[in-house]
Order: sequence, then C-alpha cells, then structure tokens
Amino acid sequence: MINKIFIINIGNELLTGRITNTNLTTLGQKLLSLGFEITEAYVIPDVKDAIFETLNKVWLDSALIIVTGGLGPTKDDITRTTLGEFFKKEMIFYEDINEDIRESFRKRNSEMPEINRVQAYIPQDFMPLKNKHGTAPGMYYKCDNRHLISLPGVPFEMEHLFEEYVVDILEANKPEMEFWVYDINTYGIGESAAAEIIENISLAENVKLAWLPHLGRVDLRLMGCNKEGIMKALGYIEEKLSNYIWGKNEKNPIDKLHQELINRQMTIATVESCTGGMLSSLLTTKSGSSKYMMGSVVCYSNDVKINTLGVLSETINKYGAVSLEVAHEMLEGCKKMFNTDICCAITGIAGPEGGSKEKPVGTVYIGVSILNKKRVEKCYFIGNREQIRQKAVDKAVFMVLEEI
Amino acid sequence: MINKIFIINIGNELLTGRITNTNLTTLGQKLLSLGFEITEAYVIPDVKDAIFETLNKVWLDSALIIVTGGLGPTKDDITRTTLGEFFKKEMIFYEDINEDIRESFRKRNSEMPEINRVQAYIPQDFMPLKNKHGTAPGMYYKCDNRHLISLPGVPFEMEHLFEEYVVDILEANKPEMEFWVYDINTYGIGESAAAEIIENISLAENVKLAWLPHLGRVDLRLMGCNKEGIMKALGYIEEKLSNYIWGKNEKNPIDKLHQELINRQMTIATVESCTGGMLSSLLTTKSGSSKYMMGSVVCYSNDVKINTLGVLSETINKYGAVSLEVAHEMLEGCKKMFNTDICCAITGIAGPEGGSKEKPVGTVYIGVSILNKKRVEKCYFIGNREQIRQKAVDKAVFMVLEEI
Repeated sequence: MINKIFIINIGNELLTGRITNTNLTTLGQKLLSLGFEITEAYVIPDVKDAIFETLNKVWLDSALIIVTGGLGPTKDDITRTTLGEFFKKEMIFYEDINEDIRESFRKRNSEMPEINRVQAYIPQDFMPLKNKHGTAPGMYYKCDNRHLISLPGVPFEMEHLFEEYVVDILEANKPEMEFWVYDINTYGIGESAAAEIIENISLAENVKLAWLPHLGRVDLRLMGCNKEGIMKALGYIEEKLSNYIWGKNEKNPIDKLHQELINRQMTIATVESCTGGMLSSLLTTKSGSSKYMMGSVVCYSNDVKINTLGVLSETINKYGAVSLEVAHEMLEGCKKMFNTDICCAITGIAGPEGGSKEKPVGTVYIGVSILNKKRVEKCYFIGNREQIRQKAVDKAVFMVLEEI
Repeated sequence: MINKIFIINIGNELLTGRITNTNLTTLGQKLLSLGFEITEAYVIPDVKDAIFETLNKVWLDSALIIVTGGLGPTKDDITRTTLGEFFKKEMIFYEDINEDIRESFRKRNSEMPEINRVQAYIPQDFMPLKNKHGTAPGMYYKCDNRHLISLPGVPFEMEHLFEEYVVDILEANKPEMEFWVYDINTYGIGESAAAEIIENISLAENVKLAWLPHLGRVDLRLMGCNKEGIMKALGYIEEKLSNYIWGKNEKNPIDKLHQELINRQMTIATVESCTGGMLSSLLTTKSGSSKYMMGSVVCYSNDVKINTLGVLSETINKYGAVSLEVAHEMLEGCKKMFNTDICCAITGIAGPEGGSKEKPVGTVYIGVSILNKKRVEKCYFIGNREQIRQKAVDKAVFMVLEEI
C-alpha cells in the first residue's frame, strides 16, 4: 500500500515563471480520483545537485515518487542520467525505443537528429514507458516497495503516460478499501453562496467534500471509502442545490451537449460577434461534431452583420450592435443562412473598451432558438476580456441544454 | 546580496489539484525581472509539521524565503502561528490591522465576523504588510541577513503585496550586476533539430541558455549578467537559425500580428472548416481587434461551403472537401464575402476519424491571400485533434506574418 507520495517537478522554466506548473495540478487531481493524496511537491531546476539533494531527502521516506521533466534530448535534460547515477545504474541503450523515436520523425517526413539518440538510454532496472505522443519515454523503477516514476514535462505527454501506465501501477498498490468519487455539477451559483446553502451538511466518517471551481461554475466532489455516507451526502446536496444542478459526474458542459445533440439527431449553427468564433470552435472540439455542427458566421464588424446576416442597419443605428433587437435579428439571420434545428446568437461588449454607463463592459445578449422556441437573454458577466467571452460561450451552451 | 531564494507555497488545495499554483509562476516572473532566480520551491499542505520540516531544511541555507498561503481566518490557516512558533516569537495583536479588517467589511456593508480577529495577530519582530485588497496582512521578518516574507495565497492579494512591499525589500538587497534576459522566437524547427544546429555555441561566463518549447514552436532565452556575452551568443544563434526566427522578445505570434495589422491598417477575415472558428477567435482575442478583424465563416458542412462561400460542388466531389482546389475556392469565397486586405482559409482532417491513406489525419490545407498575392500550402501536423487544430491556426498566423 502506498503512503507518502512526493512529486518532483524538474525544470528551470517552472522557477523563472515561463511555464505554470500545471503538471502538479493534473497529478493532484488524477491521484485524488484514484484515492491517493500528494504529501509534498518539490519544484527544482535542471541541476544535478538539486535532483540529488531532493532525492536524498525523500527517497527513503517515500512510497511513491513521480518526477516530471528533464527527459528531452538537449544538454539541459539531465533527469535520465541523474536518476541512473543516483541509483548507481548503468545506462542501457534500447534499440526498440530508438526505433520508435526514429519512426516518430519519419512520420513527420524528417530524419531523426543524432541528438535524440540519448532518449533511448534508460538506467538499468528501470522499465521504459513508451510514449506514443512524443520522443521522450518515461521510466519506472521499483525497489523495496518504493516506486519511482519519471514522466516527460510536456503536459500532454505526461498525461498520456499517466493514463497508459501509472494508473495500473497505482491500482496494483491501492489501499484495500474501495474508493468512491462522485461529482455534482452546478451552474449559476458561486462557491461561497453554495457553501452557505449546504452549510449544515453532516459528513459521515471517511467522506470528504471538495469544491472544484471552474470559470463561472462549480462542481462538488464527494469522495472516500464510505459509499453509504457518500450517497447520504449526495441526497442532501441534490435536495438543497436542485435549482443549480445540471449534471452528475459530467466532465464539462460541451461533452453533455455533444451527447444530447447526437442522441436527438439535431443540427446547430452559431452567429457570433464578441465571442469571435469561440462558441463555434467549442462546438467542433469533439470528434463526430460534424454530425450536428453545420457552420457559423462571425460578424465582428457591423458590415458583416448587415450584409451577410441581414441585420437591418436601422436596427443597429437605433438600438446599437449590442442590443436585444440585434440579437433577435442575428438569430433570424442564422436560421435563414444555415436552416439548422438550433441557432445561437451572441453579441456583447467584452471590453476593456467599448462600455458605457447603460451597457457596461460585460453586457452580452445571448439568443437561442430551437425549432419554434426562441429565447434571448441579457446577461452581465464580470471579469477580464477572455473571462467575459468564455462565460458568454458557457452560458450559450447551458441555454441550449436547458431549452433542448 | 541575496543568493539562495526559496518559495514555500502552503495549501492543501495545491496538492489535490483544486487550484493551480500560479503564485509560483508570478513570483518567478517578478523575481526574474528584478534579477533574482528562485533556487527551489516547495508545495506543502496546511500542516504544522510540514511547515516546520520545510523551514528546518531551508532557513539557514537561505537568503530569502517567500511563503504564500495559510493567512486566512479559518482553522485551516496556520501559517501565522506556525511561523511564530518556529521562530519562537510571541503573537502580538495589532489594533490598527484589526481596524483595517473591520473597515474592509464595513465597505461591503457587513460586520466583521469574530473569526477574522485572528488575522490581526502577527509574531513579534515581524513587520505587518498591510493588505488593501483583502483581510490577510502579509508579514516580513529579517534576521542575520536572511529575509522571510509571508504573503496571502489569493493571487491578486499576493501580487498586490509583492508590488507594494517586496519590490522595495529586494531592490535594497539586489545583486550589484544588472541582469539581462533576451528571447529569440523560432518557428518551423523542433527543439532537438535547433539544438543540433547550434550545438557548437560557446557561452561566456554568466550567460545561460534556456529552451522554452511551445506547441509547434520554441523560444530560446539567453540570460545572465554578462551583457556582452549574451550579445555574442545572440549573434551566433541569429546567424545559425536565421531561417526560423520570427521575432525577438515577442510574447506570442498573435501579439505580433495584432501590432502589424494595426500599424499597416490592414483588414482580415477567415473561412474555416476543421479549425471551426479557432483562428477567428484568436484574431479577436485582443482588445482593439475590431480595427482589423471583419468576420469569418465557419463552413463545417459541405452545404455551407457551397451555399455560403460559393465553393463548387463539383470541386468537392472531384477533389474532396480537404484539397488544394477547395482551399483555393474557399479563399475566393472569403474575398468575395468580406472584401478584406487579407483572407485566410483552412480545410483539413483533425481526426481522430476521417483520415485516409492518401490524406491521413493531420492533413490540412491553409491558404492566405494578401491583396493580390495568394499562397496555399498543404501541411501535415502530428498530434491529437486539439493539437492539429491548434497547429493549423498557428501556421496560418505565421503565413500571414510572412506574407504581409
């Protein structure tokens, strides 16, 4: 059974602020959902002494160490050889790993640079973890019930190797009790307000409640090895927050919408001003989205609103491009142009400029029409430009989910 | 002069993945711009033993320690008292701090809860750092040329106190030499291939070279206090990698394009298939983008390609929707529709489905027309769906930057 878990994130770029250490976030979430909690994390530079010192501090005390970073092909990347040296292991050349790396270059129609050959060297007694999405293999070492796993620093490759190998390693060394995780997805209420509503919740032993805030929405996660206790807490939260719950164990709203649109065989199109195509890109994120997503017009300029979508210039002059009336006409233009079951229109002021006293930055009109139903809402979002745009897109997705 | 700098980020939420540790990123950036580099960072839970252990490890070895987190009013927040205990200092109640906290509640039309009173207790010999943006004051302790600064965990408050107090403390203890940072932005070459080209670079003393990889591109950072040495290395890199350099000290390609389009007073529009509006959203990211961005058509379905953009159905039937010919017609459709100085067209296979032997997943045709110039390129990108889409968008931006 694994107890003390240390993360060592190696990389100068993490200490100079060039890159945010999202690997720690991802590892924290993934480990937690498997029932493990990180004891401590170390962020250190690509410096041999620093790696040695940190390993000296934690190795004997650890049950599991996950190292990220330093597996690239350049001279900075010293994790491979340093781990070899620390554990006094010879470096072994793996012909098949070298061939994999060569192949990944071949796919891109290029020759493997000689420099990448170093990535095929792994310390003896370490198991190489093949990396389908990059050239750096991971490595796994086990000794006296202590586990050390070394993963690449590129977040996407790190996640891939975690899912491909680390989950199995952890499952095999899991605490004996089963561990349950249950998410309740809410929208339209802030963390503190929601916390106040359920403040009298009593959690049974071995049940934890975690708050997972996203931009503009929050998930509540119940977890622990007491399934009965989790179900009781779940019932309480469902009752108290019923007005705000949009899903259970959903990853995010777009996954749910994707499934709904495919199940209902409905088509969708968008016309967007301030969000500039963000809703459209979101609706094409998932493979298979061509089944429902037809297209979009980004009408960033008034000319495009008028010439392409048929919004009347009088309407714009009279009410402004950001208005209920223009949102209605954009919705009509969308329907005419794409003839889809569902149309979405967004027009607003994302800022930081362009606001007025009457329509401050953050004012966004969002319209959704589904077959013969039509709903346009005036919203007011708080945040910077990107946050306002993102919140408008999310709101549109939730409006479709509600009206569908 | 400050030498070894340690960051201690305290907070359970950083280890469970609930919050990403952006405070480390911010501190890294701010310290670097003042000429300081972080030696190591520790992410630890709100646990007294963990704080004691970490301070025991680093205090005597340190010149500066910045602690974040654990200054809130609840029972979890133990940084204040734990620091007091570690340094064997009595806790002192500050009436004026208490009044500040009371006042900050008054501003929000509410009474100060009794619980917040603890935030006015500071260990003896620590200097309180007043927090205008929250209830938690920071703390500063100096002993034998070692400095310890404790800041709140809320990023906004942490930054405020850094600017208000920490900058001055550091300026007064700055290394005498000035510190230089110089970035060279490259595109179209991988980290390994670039490293091979410049492998014979000889770096003078006090010059460091760091590789900063992004998706599909890489920046090289030269830094140190030897300006002459940096300029020499810069010259060498510029000569060797001249074919791949697109900028110097640029943050990212869209910032550069934004500036170029505004300076040249040029307008732009896009028509997108596989990227679904991602290029369009990128082109509307920055405030002021309405000066150049007119609009976009996302022609995800063939119907939209034909009916809205005027792509010939024969062309689609003969060559396929992902083809040089369709890209050309999309570009023409874009020009007709928006009549902008610059038009961009993207059609491709983002996968994971839809690939064929002839046109595998990752095949993307990207077209750019600028006034009377026209260029369409067949590209082949590696990665998952999101990466292929992102790389296609970046390539389009670079094509515009090259042709402009």
